[in-house]
Amino acid sequence: MTEQFSSAQVEDLTSRTEAFIREEVMPSEPRPGEYLDSAHRADLMRRAKHAGVFAPHAPKQYGGLGLPIEHWSPVFQAAGYSPIGPSVLNCMAPDEGNMRMLEAIATPAQQDRYLGPLARGDVRSCFPMTEPHPGAGSDPAALQTEARKVDGGWVIDGHKRFISGAIGASFAIVMARNDAADSVTAGSTMLLVEMSNPGVRVGEQIHTIDRTIEGGHPHVYFDDCFVSDDAVLGGPGLGFRYAQVRLGPARLTHCMRWLGLARRALDIALDRASARELFGSRLQDLGIAQNLLAESVIDVETSDAIIQRTATLLASNPKEGTALSSVAKTYCSEAVFRVIDRAIQLCGGDGVSDGLPLAQYLNEVRPFRIYDGSNETHKWAIARRKVAARDRQVAAGASRLDRIGEQSYDRS
Amino acid sequence: MTEQFSSAQVEDLTSRTEAFIREEVMPSEPRPGEYLDSAHRADLMRRAKHAGVFAPHAPKQYGGLGLPIEHWSPVFQAAGYSPIGPSVLNCMAPDEGNMRMLEAIATPAQQDRYLGPLARGDVRSCFPMTEPHPGAGSDPAALQTEARKVDGGWVIDGHKRFISGAIGASFAIVMARNDAADSVTAGSTMLLVEMSNPGVRVGEQIHTIDRTIEGGHPHVYFDDCFVSDDAVLGGPGLGFRYAQVRLGPARLTHCMRWLGLARRALDIALDRASARELFGSRLQDLGIAQNLLAESVIDVETSDAIIQRTATLLASNPKEGTALSSVAKTYCSEAVFRVIDRAIQLCGGDGVSDGLPLAQYLNEVRPFRIYDGSNETHKWAIARRKVAARDRQVAAGASRLDRIGEQSYDRS
Amino acid sequence: MTEQFSSAQVEDLTSRTEAFIREEVMPSEPRPGEYLDSAHRADLMRRAKHAGVFAPHAPKQYGGLGLPIEHWSPVFQAAGYSPIGPSVLNCMAPDEGNMRMLEAIATPAQQDRYLGPLARGDVRSCFPMTEPHPGAGSDPAALQTEARKVDGGWVIDGHKRFISGAIGASFAIVMARNDAADSVTAGSTMLLVEMSNPGVRVGEQIHTIDRTIEGGHPHVYFDDCFVSDDAVLGGPGLGFRYAQVRLGPARLTHCMRWLGLARRALDIALDRASARELFGSRLQDLGIAQNLLAESVIDVETSDAIIQRTATLLASNPKEGTALSSVAKTYCSEAVFRVIDRAIQLCGGDGVSDGLPLAQYLNEVRPFRIYDGSNETHKWAIARRKVAARDRQVAAGASRLDRIGEQSYDRS
Amino acid sequence: MTEQFSSAQVEDLTSRTEAFIREEVMPSEPRPGEYLDSAHRADLMRRAKHAGVFAPHAPKQYGGLGLPIEHWSPVFQAAGYSPIGPSVLNCMAPDEGNMRMLEAIATPAQQDRYLGPLARGDVRSCFPMTEPHPGAGSDPAALQTEARKVDGGWVIDGHKRFISGAIGASFAIVMARNDAADSVTAGSTMLLVEMSNPGVRVGEQIHTIDRTIEGGHPHVYFDDCFVSDDAVLGGPGLGFRYAQVRLGPARLTHCMRWLGLARRALDIALDRASARELFGSRLQDLGIAQNLLAESVIDVETSDAIIQRTATLLASNPKEGTALSSVAKTYCSEAVFRVIDRAIQLCGGDGVSDGLPLAQYLNEVRPFRIYDGSNETHKWAIARRKVAARDRQVAAGASRLDRIGEQSYDRS
Repeated sequence: MTEQFSSAQVEDLTSRTEAFIREEVMPSEPRPGEYLDSAHRADLMRRAKHAGVFAPHAPKQYGGLGLPIEHWSPVFQAAGYSPIGPSVLNCMAPDEGNMRMLEAIATPAQQDRYLGPLARGDVRSCFPMTEPHPGAGSDPAALQTEARKVDGGWVIDGHKRFISGAIGASFAIVMARNDAADSVTAGSTMLLVEMSNPGVRVGEQIHTIDRTIEGGHPHVYFDDCFVSDDAVLGGPGLGFRYAQVRLGPARLTHCMRWLGLARRALDIALDRASARELFGSRLQDLGIAQNLLAESVIDVETSDAIIQRTATLLASNPKEGTALSSVAKTYCSEAVFRVIDRAIQLCGGDGVSDGLPLAQYLNEVRPFRIYDGSNETHKWAIARRKVAARDRQVAAGASRLDRIGEQSYDRS
Repeated sequence: MTEQFSSAQVEDLTSRTEAFIREEVMPSEPRPGEYLDSAHRADLMRRAKHAGVFAPHAPKQYGGLGLPIEHWSPVFQAAGYSPIGPSVLNCMAPDEGNMRMLEAIATPAQQDRYLGPLARGDVRSCFPMTEPHPGAGSDPAALQTEARKVDGGWVIDGHKRFISGAIGASFAIVMARNDAADSVTAGSTMLLVEMSNPGVRVGEQIHTIDRTIEGGHPHVYFDDCFVSDDAVLGGPGLGFRYAQVRLGPARLTHCMRWLGLARRALDIALDRASARELFGSRLQDLGIAQNLLAESVIDVETSDAIIQRTATLLASNPKEGTALSSVAKTYCSEAVFRVIDRAIQLCGGDGVSDGLPLAQYLNEVRPFRIYDGSNETHKWAIARRKVAARDRQVAAGASRLDRIGEQSYDRS
Repeated sequence: MTEQFSSAQVEDLTSRTEAFIREEVMPSEPRPGEYLDSAHRADLMRRAKHAGVFAPHAPKQYGGLGLPIEHWSPVFQAAGYSPIGPSVLNCMAPDEGNMRMLEAIATPAQQDRYLGPLARGDVRSCFPMTEPHPGAGSDPAALQTEARKVDGGWVIDGHKRFISGAIGASFAIVMARNDAADSVTAGSTMLLVEMSNPGVRVGEQIHTIDRTIEGGHPHVYFDDCFVSDDAVLGGPGLGFRYAQVRLGPARLTHCMRWLGLARRALDIALDRASARELFGSRLQDLGIAQNLLAESVIDVETSDAIIQRTATLLASNPKEGTALSSVAKTYCSEAVFRVIDRAIQLCGGDGVSDGLPLAQYLNEVRPFRIYDGSNETHKWAIARRKVAARDRQVAAGASRLDRIGEQSYDRS
Repeated sequence: MTEQFSSAQVEDLTSRTEAFIREEVMPSEPRPGEYLDSAHRADLMRRAKHAGVFAPHAPKQYGGLGLPIEHWSPVFQAAGYSPIGPSVLNCMAPDEGNMRMLEAIATPAQQDRYLGPLARGDVRSCFPMTEPHPGAGSDPAALQTEARKVDGGWVIDGHKRFISGAIGASFAIVMARNDAADSVTAGSTMLLVEMSNPGVRVGEQIHTIDRTIEGGHPHVYFDDCFVSDDAVLGGPGLGFRYAQVRLGPARLTHCMRWLGLARRALDIALDRASARELFGSRLQDLGIAQNLLAESVIDVETSDAIIQRTATLLASNPKEGTALSSVAKTYCSEAVFRVIDRAIQLCGGDGVSDGLPLAQYLNEVRPFRIYDGSNETHKWAIARRKVAARDRQVAAGASRLDRIGEQSYDRS
């Protein structure tokens, strides 16, 4: 259950989050290319709880602040101002998305068992969905991992990859297809699986260019993996429907966090442009630098606006909000990349060295144009939805507008 | 005085405006390259009043609907779906911006004399600000038109150009510099001038590529033009301050109207993509077309979001709203241009002929990247404001972030 | 037969063409939005002949200069520096492309009858290929106009549109499909048709936004149109093959001419940036203006380079040159649009008025992103050709490079 | 002395280089993020000599192939198809640029001592020019390292950074300013300095994101570093003039090598698009993928064309060639970045992992938008040169074109 928050309360939480990030988190950031180690993270999480900024999105009964989704953006942006901020505040992917789904769908018993420890930061989780080609990827319908109904439970077999956070995770929410006898429950099912289950094996690590998700992106194998009936999340056959509950907000919170990081990059560039002189002027007074700075401000402000609009819509109309999240994801993933890229350019040689963290930031956000649905896949979906929406307008009485004006021809 | 409007009321007004545009206005649109004639406009205005959709932004006591600025966007977009819609609904530049300024600054007597007839659509107005080089243009401080204080009034001398709507206008709000004896009132002053004043001459017309503003964009000359003391709008020396009252909202309403036109262009493209087949597929099913459509949807939705955010901010914090309007103007003027440009591409040869109105639409919005402050000037302002904002953060305690990490060097 | 030209000769011809355009043609340019009238054109053509710069590409025996295609670019660019230059020098579409095809394919008798008068500028021609949907357009294979073999000749029936130059043309090269009995000659055929043939009717004019092609872009109807056997250009069934002879060079010469116009626009912008002051600096010294100027220089130089490379390749390897002309067309049509668009921006309000010709230039080049194959269709072809080329490399022994490196995985 | 090469000879060398890279070099490439070790490099260099493809640009008398610069592009692109190819063929920066400068300027004795071992690959070199802020960087005139004339030689003092290849280099060509008594030799001077000189110290390494240059990019300190008179390269005071000899070709060879790598990335993407299916189609048949592929082909072909044009111009007119190299550098550095970025997008998750080398390639080329003059600095120079060129045209008689057409005004 989310709480009522006033604007003033949200502003206060945002300010306190900003201060915590600036004073406690930024001094602890690992060097570019390195990871935050677990002990350090645990210490910072403890301090975040003490500061009252921990798990802003999580339910109050499980130690969070109960902030409703329409207020997440400023707080998540404040967290994302440090690449390790979201992890420290326990609002990082994939745990944050899993918490949201457990809150929405899980039984009270499942919530106590899984959501509680996760929200408190005692354990981590993963969401094994992507599969090696030709399985589930840009086309989720290609899902190949299978859950067979057996007496008293289910048996899962399949191969997943790019499973963020899997190394060291306590449990997984596994997406599998099930060909049930009755058509009602045929489709896909989500199952809660302990990573200690003997049927689960974390395989080879896949080295990617990002560094902010603890637990890597390895292969995960399910081999004759038995789980009991109470492992089903929601109901059998409803996996794809539930996935929508997760995917819209999950891709939007990525936008929020990375926009925070883009703001950091822009601040680095501003500080460099303030300090440096070139051809007798401060860099910040040279038109070509001002052009880059202004374009980044425009990218940041427009991203902020479409994120907030999408968050508000997700709260009031999840289906339309999920559709709009495709727009927000595609736009913001490219905008934050541009902002960081321009900051590198403004910082010259230092921008591509690890004297500044900008090159690592670029590597951090580059994958976001691919994961959570590649931008090309989203564009395809955006176009199809728009075509369908126009068809509905026409069905409701709007005239087609492509008629060539006969009035435009004169007899020659 | 603006009224309180509920979401439902705004939605209802938007729907009714959409219907009026679709049913009454679109059938009356002039052919590409031509103008709406005055008689036709007057008839349509009468019908708009009857339909209860006339002058949504204007005060109720003067015949408008009293809609507050934070609700203008959906209604103005609905109006802008037809290039003549804003003119018919009396919410077109420059009158709409002049109404706003008169509402905010004018004395009751001035309101009765100027705002009333203007809001009711009985007369038109203009806002002579731009001057020939090297006068006021991208740099307003270069203002050269002069207002001299004389006994009982002021005498204006100067040359203005690109004065939209001047031909046939009833009155002008003239911006002039005044070098008053006392420093308090030195600066610039706005003056209400009847166009029938013998000191005013409307000069050569400047042919531009747009067609939606009645009254052209001619030169206007002020030659020993006397106005009495009650012609001062607001107070002497406050012209630039008052101009801000006008400029932020005025450039934002351009965004709203042109975004409506961009939606129209996108619908034309969608209808074409639905009707045409190429290489055995419907155009709307070809990936390269889908890519263009999706990019236009993204442009439309992000424009919508930044416009709404700016409008809301203008209502609560005019100074910050005006600053953000630079971002909205720069972004939207380019986004709507792209949307129409893509629609042309999707319509092929018909897109560049006047069988479809798209080429004219492109000519309609191209100037918006220049007027109301060229995008380059806005970018310069955006960069400077951001630099100043960062300096304030640092003054308030934030650390400069451009220090090169010493930790990044190893002894070789 | 083309001649041998030394570099010095080409430079000399280019210089003389530049001088002729500057001194004789530019003072005669029509106002923006208007057309060059025929009498004026005839007079300028006479002067061009006198100056030795007329029809640089046409065969010497028919009054041209016999310049081979690899040397056309600088000369055509010099011509295109004025929007009416190519027409005056008789190297404008569609005549220039028709001359090339007649030179390559026509019989001596056909050349004397058609090429001679055309090259000398005594008559004009057209190339009716495009048809109303769902006929030949972006997909030439959809050709619907039919040529039936009859005793002693052929009978043509069909409807063409966007037939540039048709009004007032003397003859047409018509593309029609023919379903001959023998498979050798089935396919499409090109036929030389006098526009005075009673079976030809020039229909409604289509008003487009460009102004440089004399004779409009009307519909043309063929109704039971008989032509004798000697009207076949080349051979029956070879129409598509011959069309390639025309299309590659024809789209490249558009690139050359429009690049000349883009250079003109850039010069206008440079002159404006030299003359104007803003915020106390000359516009040309402000970084944001310099950025726009530099981007236009880059567009111009890269366009020049890809045009020259394609022209050279067309001379030595027409098949590969035609393939590369898709790249040149797509790139240059967008680059010249950008250059003119930036020039408008640099010229402010004058840029969108007809005080300067820039807005008309933009309308002049906008259709080039559509005609001669829309850029989207070319991109589709470019991608398919590249895929096929890569397949050939692999067939010849190259290894596929998409294997995921096994070495990249560590055991977790 | 360069040799005469026929087209056939260049094609043959290109083919043999391609084969050598494919068969000998590609199997030896280090994993993404790692370096080629020296022993491995030495072995591959030996094999390259055996294959007759070693040091194509270097003089024959020193073991190279003597290829003139106008023929370098296809060969250097073939080398660059592997990130370690240029290093193996001894045509990598900074050695390749130093070889060119030594060939052009050094005395025979200096050539024997420095150029010979360098061209044969026996030693490496560096070119210490960049200094910490506020020294020489984007503004070379800010040079602070000083060379004082003393009896029998010079004493160098200064601090350089980002000195590519310095670790393990045998000698350096140092740029220093000298304030000689006579004005003729005042200015900057290039000096040949052994890295074993006790006055030279290689300082802290700067970790950058690229991996292809052996010897890192460390700081280098000159402290009371004495060199004898014969260490002067060319003549005192001519350093900046000589730097131009190096910089134009050096930045162009970067374009060539990185364009080779971009071709590799495009081939990887093509192979992936051939192998993968999505939504029931091969990726290469989906329009959105085709759009990405086509845009990359356009980037590759236009880059190739501007590189070749610049190389040809550098051979015939070094001053104009150097000016055009600013255009080539700015365009190509951005084009190759886009090509690799699109390839990543087409390869999805594998594109941002080190299962494929693409993410490393992106890190490899990102710095090229900064080094050899940042693109922003080049744009500034391009704009200034164009303004100056236009001024010269006007001085030679061309009319300014920004006059507002009086004919465009009608009396209203």
